[in-house]
Amino acid sequence: MSASETEAAIEAGRHHDARAPRTAAAVGQRALRGDPVRVAIVGATGYVGAELVRLLALHPNVEIVGLVGRERKGDPIAGIHPHLATSDLKVFDAVPDSAEAVFLALPHGAVAGRIDEFLGRGQTVIDLGPDFRLRDQGDYPRWYHFDHPRADLLATAVYGLPELHREELAAVGRAPGAIVGAPGCYATTTILALAPLARAGLIADLVVDAKSGVSGAGREPKADLQFGEVNESVKAYGIFTHRHIGEIEQELGALGSEGANPGVRGVDFLPHLIPMTRGILSAGHVRPTRPVTQAELDALYLDAYGDERFVTVVDAPPATKHVLGSNEFRVWCRVDERNGRILAIGVLDNLVKGAAGQAIQAFNVVHGLPETAGLLQLPLAP
Amino acid sequence: MSASETEAAIEAGRHHDARAPRTAAAVGQRALRGDPVRVAIVGATGYVGAELVRLLALHPNVEIVGLVGRERKGDPIAGIHPHLATSDLKVFDAVPDSAEAVFLALPHGAVAGRIDEFLGRGQTVIDLGPDFRLRDQGDYPRWYHFDHPRADLLATAVYGLPELHREELAAVGRAPGAIVGAPGCYATTTILALAPLARAGLIADLVVDAKSGVSGAGREPKADLQFGEVNESVKAYGIFTHRHIGEIEQELGALGSEGANPGVRGVDFLPHLIPMTRGILSAGHVRPTRPVTQAELDALYLDAYGDERFVTVVDAPPATKHVLGSNEFRVWCRVDERNGRILAIGVLDNLVKGAAGQAIQAFNVVHGLPETAGLLQLPLAP
Amino acid sequence: MSASETEAAIEAGRHHDARAPRTAAAVGQRALRGDPVRVAIVGATGYVGAELVRLLALHPNVEIVGLVGRERKGDPIAGIHPHLATSDLKVFDAVPDSAEAVFLALPHGAVAGRIDEFLGRGQTVIDLGPDFRLRDQGDYPRWYHFDHPRADLLATAVYGLPELHREELAAVGRAPGAIVGAPGCYATTTILALAPLARAGLIADLVVDAKSGVSGAGREPKADLQFGEVNESVKAYGIFTHRHIGEIEQELGALGSEGANPGVRGVDFLPHLIPMTRGILSAGHVRPTRPVTQAELDALYLDAYGDERFVTVVDAPPATKHVLGSNEFRVWCRVDERNGRILAIGVLDNLVKGAAGQAIQAFNVVHGLPETAGLLQLPLAP
Amino acid sequence: MSASETEAAIEAGRHHDARAPRTAAAVGQRALRGDPVRVAIVGATGYVGAELVRLLALHPNVEIVGLVGRERKGDPIAGIHPHLATSDLKVFDAVPDSAEAVFLALPHGAVAGRIDEFLGRGQTVIDLGPDFRLRDQGDYPRWYHFDHPRADLLATAVYGLPELHREELAAVGRAPGAIVGAPGCYATTTILALAPLARAGLIADLVVDAKSGVSGAGREPKADLQFGEVNESVKAYGIFTHRHIGEIEQELGALGSEGANPGVRGVDFLPHLIPMTRGILSAGHVRPTRPVTQAELDALYLDAYGDERFVTVVDAPPATKHVLGSNEFRVWCRVDERNGRILAIGVLDNLVKGAAGQAIQAFNVVHGLPETAGLLQLPLAP
Repeated sequence: MSASETEAAIEAGRHHDARAPRTAAAVGQRALRGDPVRVAIVGATGYVGAELVRLLALHPNVEIVGLVGRERKGDPIAGIHPHLATSDLKVFDAVPDSAEAVFLALPHGAVAGRIDEFLGRGQTVIDLGPDFRLRDQGDYPRWYHFDHPRADLLATAVYGLPELHREELAAVGRAPGAIVGAPGCYATTTILALAPLARAGLIADLVVDAKSGVSGAGREPKADLQFGEVNESVKAYGIFTHRHIGEIEQELGALGSEGANPGVRGVDFLPHLIPMTRGILSAGHVRPTRPVTQAELDALYLDAYGDERFVTVVDAPPATKHVLGSNEFRVWCRVDERNGRILAIGVLDNLVKGAAGQAIQAFNVVHGLPETAGLLQLPLAP
Repeated sequence: MSASETEAAIEAGRHHDARAPRTAAAVGQRALRGDPVRVAIVGATGYVGAELVRLLALHPNVEIVGLVGRERKGDPIAGIHPHLATSDLKVFDAVPDSAEAVFLALPHGAVAGRIDEFLGRGQTVIDLGPDFRLRDQGDYPRWYHFDHPRADLLATAVYGLPELHREELAAVGRAPGAIVGAPGCYATTTILALAPLARAGLIADLVVDAKSGVSGAGREPKADLQFGEVNESVKAYGIFTHRHIGEIEQELGALGSEGANPGVRGVDFLPHLIPMTRGILSAGHVRPTRPVTQAELDALYLDAYGDERFVTVVDAPPATKHVLGSNEFRVWCRVDERNGRILAIGVLDNLVKGAAGQAIQAFNVVHGLPETAGLLQLPLAP
Repeated sequence: MSASETEAAIEAGRHHDARAPRTAAAVGQRALRGDPVRVAIVGATGYVGAELVRLLALHPNVEIVGLVGRERKGDPIAGIHPHLATSDLKVFDAVPDSAEAVFLALPHGAVAGRIDEFLGRGQTVIDLGPDFRLRDQGDYPRWYHFDHPRADLLATAVYGLPELHREELAAVGRAPGAIVGAPGCYATTTILALAPLARAGLIADLVVDAKSGVSGAGREPKADLQFGEVNESVKAYGIFTHRHIGEIEQELGALGSEGANPGVRGVDFLPHLIPMTRGILSAGHVRPTRPVTQAELDALYLDAYGDERFVTVVDAPPATKHVLGSNEFRVWCRVDERNGRILAIGVLDNLVKGAAGQAIQAFNVVHGLPETAGLLQLPLAP
Repeated sequence: MSASETEAAIEAGRHHDARAPRTAAAVGQRALRGDPVRVAIVGATGYVGAELVRLLALHPNVEIVGLVGRERKGDPIAGIHPHLATSDLKVFDAVPDSAEAVFLALPHGAVAGRIDEFLGRGQTVIDLGPDFRLRDQGDYPRWYHFDHPRADLLATAVYGLPELHREELAAVGRAPGAIVGAPGCYATTTILALAPLARAGLIADLVVDAKSGVSGAGREPKADLQFGEVNESVKAYGIFTHRHIGEIEQELGALGSEGANPGVRGVDFLPHLIPMTRGILSAGHVRPTRPVTQAELDALYLDAYGDERFVTVVDAPPATKHVLGSNEFRVWCRVDERNGRILAIGVLDNLVKGAAGQAIQAFNVVHGLPETAGLLQLPLAP
């Protein structure tokens, strides 16, 4: 919605208010005064929802005006998430109109069908599910087995990976009703690990072998996520069909010149469940399109990430524990002199940089806040 | 601050220099200006040292002016603790004179012998080891097998548990050279869980059965702390001789009237090592000196902790995961109607409220800072 | 099948075929020939059921003639329990008449109501649930919240702890229709750890603080048993009400002279869930009725367990990992010179000596087999 | 052999005593009588050594005549490995002459230099280290950084993977002084997972991404194997240089016709350390030399493993927990219809089928015993 459209809307008396409707002008005025951005979190009863609360509760530029969960009638968040016992926030079943931005942590398909509810109120939509990640509407039936009801919006939604789409995020922020499709956890790990190689057209063949803790599977009790099943075990899952493949191919495919990276089509992506709660490690095994030197790789990664606050190019193979609880992504890339192949390893905390933290980072960009606001906690180790 | 900057500062008479001893007046002036307190961390290469860095690096009223480790010559902390990769801090082998407060995370006996070094510079000493926790010099040979070289200071040092000794901590802060003996991890858990009962003279007989993650044992490689030994196992250790018994008896013994709690002498304290990294749960099994009602217990705990920011009296038995990574202590207390006994269960993160966080909390009180400064991170779950 | 039907069957010469009912005479004859005992396992789809299969499949004197699970129609056990992939056994919904002994791993209350089904076929009943553990019918509503429908059988059932009831087990074995109530996991750990003290009348006051892996809670998905909830956490549960208290008080109360152990009434028993799959450690904190020496304790334990194959009195505090996967129980007992209290620590694998293994051990005694048959596997460590 | 039998044997001058050298004739005679094979275990103080004891102690055709560890003078194995508390075996510093076979669990390079000691006594050598795994002497400096002192023996040693070298193992068994180089844990997992594809000449390009528990790294305390470092973390290690690459290339390279599998040269092999104690999962990502169908793959694996007792081709992706504590290997292989690639996943317990169990399996073949003797324990789950 353009500024003039906004004005027109105001004149027309369409006050989508919550007692204080949001308009570009109103938002601008509030921002000038340093008022916090009013946000709501939908899906607050799940793991990602709790993580949004954990981080946003201390965000210096945010006021949480609503926690939302199905059939909740003011239930204290402290009862739902015992670790948040010191919070007075309560969970209701409706999104408050007063919210200027809405974080949605819902299953796939749940946001697409009700997007107008948020847009109608001029709320920024930060969708942590997949409904606005993919550009090609054909990807929804392929990877998620549903037809997207609002394919018309896919072109305007922004893939919420600030390291690749910062300018677009900032651009949509200038108008109300922005839609951000925050990336999947495996997708973030894999795309950030490989983006410099894709940009340079180096990926002839690609195997991605990823390992994740269980929290990415959510909080609903499942037989194969019981402690007794997960502990002291590792297994592959989602074999050949993991939904994040779509995002990975979309984003890596958009880097480099047309056809420069044949390996990013039909990616061989294999996720594993390992006995830990948080963390993803993604190992990208690349057969390069041409011989490369280590110096060249170092330069590519430095160029890509030298100025990024949340991406660190490290000198030693990273462990997921090195980033636990933080919004950091770490990457290490080497050429194997023995066979000329490239190995790129990335790690993150799937609930922070892989979900809640990254969504907040994108939100910060959209709303013109410091990109690191609310995200400066250092990793927790050991 | 660089060397030349330092020189310039000295010439200009601006006393934050490295050699300028701290005085109450100088500190007072700086505090009035809102200058951060300059702190050093000794023992920065261990787990507790890293945790101090993690928290103090974001403390709004603190500037870290020195990290100290044996034989370290400017080694980047990022190399020693990979999770701190985004930090530029370096570790040296000497405590900078400029520090106004020194956090010491060293083995027992290491601080007592060099205490004059810090006092001579007028530095607040926050000792996270045991050298200044016990009031009775006889307790050192008994529990730690060494004779205390500076028993003359034991009376003036303050046991750094703000919930019990807040006023004393604030009082020592008015003079330079304060010594704070920050409590042990088991001791904190046990004392806070039982203090309201002790204060009421209710402890006739006491069994404390505690469970801890491994990080309390430090970072040095030990055969019985290898993953293969700890995982999928539980064992008791330190049986009959655990050093924290001395603190527990001292602090609980000081509550209530003389002889009111016969159970706090000769406490039956049993710690266990369980397969997790952080967290302590301490279960206090109490045979009361007289019959009690649940309402009475509720009132005692509310009275003790209702105003405490870092202690929460909870309605359901707490889990250590509920406080992971935070400075929170949680306690639950119930009378067993079947046999009239009292059960008090406390949980904390041994590296935060059980070590670094609590030390910072005490430091905040000593230095007149907001008690919660730098300690507001919410627990990390799942 | 009634007794007369059985006789008729014997007269008809249908001796030992799959349909032939068991009689004392027939069993005796088969045993003389060294025929394996035909057993069925009811509740084969759960963790305890699987463990029974794991052990009985290699038992030299047993033939598994039936695996039973609700609504199962010949489902391969290999599909239900992937670790048993090499087994050809199938699960059906009925207990075969041919079974001479039936192992029942069912929820409480499920066996009491259908006990005649097994007795009518002359089958030995090895109930791994609680329905025949308690002698006092009033204990069922108290601890299990149901009225026992066959209280008349409680006196004849034997508590299946061979170390305490070996002769009774052997005695019931001489008649068909024996009922064995195999002990609970916590109960076994606690009773075996403390029996020598109870026998000597030493327990004036008793606190039992136990720690368990999650497998004791069974295989049904539960929110608080998800990996993300259990990992890196410890919590107490079943506080004041854990059902095994009834067994513990019954069995310890029966040792020593009347009233000799006041501490075994109203036991303060506190179980904890810790992040591991198998294993229980039970710490018995005892205030003795009179002063004791270590030599006295050593003699008591040696006397009690010196000849026991599955109980080892150890010299160092035991860890649960030391007995993983085996039918071993280990115990360590010491007097604390500082306060005169006694500490007894026992460990076992809750699915073996705490369930399936012990049930097989009792079965062996009942059926006159070598007590160690099928139970000789050594612990698995690390 | 009973005590009296032993005495009789000695009186009769039949010296199976410690000094009696083994000869083919003597061994043959003993075997005819069904005497157990006398074995020694060198390196009994480590994890693999303990596992050999655990399994061989119950092997029906074996008598353990010696446990050997450096500077050990009769130390009870029960003290060194607490889980073996029920064993009376003791550890000495010398290999008894009476042993007919010697299992060696020693660091690389330790066996090659003293091989004559064993050969001189006519003892079968089952080396669980790498000294006799590789055929090409150039592979030792390349992968292990030492020059092999007895390269002359490399051609006669047999790679102890019965599924690939059963006939050779049986053949060497007919003469004393056989040398078996038991495979590495990663090598076993990877080779067995991919052998059917290699045999069919299907491997054009190969990425092997493996995940292991920590026990493979041995029992020596190491900083990065402390629980606090391993738990809740995953990292890659041994990148580009892992020593098992040599074995993998050797064994897969020997399958199929010359040059049929270009992918088995310069294999991209990446091992990871994950937070568990036992278990390896190896994922082989294969770009095939030609299009394949699933039916073809099924046939290849059935043909390779249909008759193997310790290899199971499974229908669902296997987890390491499915084989814990057993000598089983499980494999699952599928073609990805989307990109035509093949994925083969294998799992085993690194201390059993990846070490001690497999060594015993090879020993059984060499000594003409039933291949499954001592190895029938079922997996332990959960």
